[in-house]
Amino acid sequence: MSGLFITFEGPEGAGKSTNLQVFAQALNAAGCQPLLTREPGGTSVAERIRDVLLSHHEERMCSDAELLLMFAARAQHLHALIKPALDAGRVVISDRFTDATYAYQGGGRGIPVERIASLETWVQGELRPDITVIFDVPVEVGMARARARSELDRFEVEEQSFFEAVRNTYLSRAAAEPQRYRVIDASGDLQQVAAAMQPVINEVLERWHA
Amino acid sequence: MSGLFITFEGPEGAGKSTNLQVFAQALNAAGCQPLLTREPGGTSVAERIRDVLLSHHEERMCSDAELLLMFAARAQHLHALIKPALDAGRVVISDRFTDATYAYQGGGRGIPVERIASLETWVQGELRPDITVIFDVPVEVGMARARARSELDRFEVEEQSFFEAVRNTYLSRAAAEPQRYRVIDASGDLQQVAAAMQPVINEVLERWHA
Repeated sequence: MSGLFITFEGPEGAGKSTNLQVFAQALNAAGCQPLLTREPGGTSVAERIRDVLLSHHEERMCSDAELLLMFAARAQHLHALIKPALDAGRVVISDRFTDATYAYQGGGRGIPVERIASLETWVQGELRPDITVIFDVPVEVGMARARARSELDRFEVEEQSFFEAVRNTYLSRAAAEPQRYRVIDASGDLQQVAAAMQPVINEVLERWHA
Repeated sequence: MSGLFITFEGPEGAGKSTNLQVFAQALNAAGCQPLLTREPGGTSVAERIRDVLLSHHEERMCSDAELLLMFAARAQHLHALIKPALDAGRVVISDRFTDATYAYQGGGRGIPVERIASLETWVQGELRPDITVIFDVPVEVGMARARARSELDRFEVEEQSFFEAVRNTYLSRAAAEPQRYRVIDASGDLQQVAAAMQPVINEVLERWHA
């Protein structure tokens, strides 16, 4: 595998999607055309699974089913999109990946970390992102932004304590593996966040040229 | 867990669904009201996953995604329907369960048996069916019946070799664990199959009374 796999993570309202566009534009301007994708989803089959995951259902979806659906979508995403692009030497940027599973299904829903890790290895083998950028924002700020934006999906209607656990999981994963993670304060305005992303953009371009 | 968990298995056109009705009527007549269900599906969320599994897609679904979807539906089915019914002491009969995964995704698609076994344990823990009835029929007979019946789903359009592998997997699993499996020749007419099911019906009633 010769490409570079970058994932963007963060709680609701951290501005991931907007920041991803800014980040990608900077790479494009430097002649590196990243493949932009997202999870859950990224391919037509995976987006069908995303619909099931994010829809409201009359019946409560159990946490194991939710976790397996996440990894089903991920298996398809890796097989049909991410791995072929990395094999072709491309920079791939995914809006969320397995860190989100640890944060939401692990931290948020309380699924034991070993159960998630065993599925991670089952699906991904040794594949992990090269760089994971975490957009960190206080829970109240993120929730206020998410509420202002649109109708809330099945995850966005969760309690504040759920999102505190999500945030804490992201931060503790970043602290445990600083060589992979870059934490960016996303509570400021777009320009501030763009400035904070610049060192990561430079790093990606250096590693891509190498 | 005090109930009795029975699964019906067999390739396309083995007459499972019809035989299940006959089997259930016999139990009902004896005062035992079994819960009838099916896989993939059995609950509203699991049926949503079934739709994704059985639909034709423009993109080819990779075998890992297919397997994870099967187990996602199964996790929900166990959580919301099967386990509560068994805990309440009921006889549960499911039209397909994990043996179908070994037969279709293992035998048919060639996923290694250890990969299936590791998900089986992840999802089910120690839970296995008490009795698995396999309706066995030569592949050509089953396929001819399935074709005559209706439009074919994403599995039913597979090649003959796929279904040979499915059948062989069922039979070798039954041979390896005769205390759990009952193989019934399903190539005859309804009356012949009903007669062949009678000893299993008697056994279920005995174990249910016990």
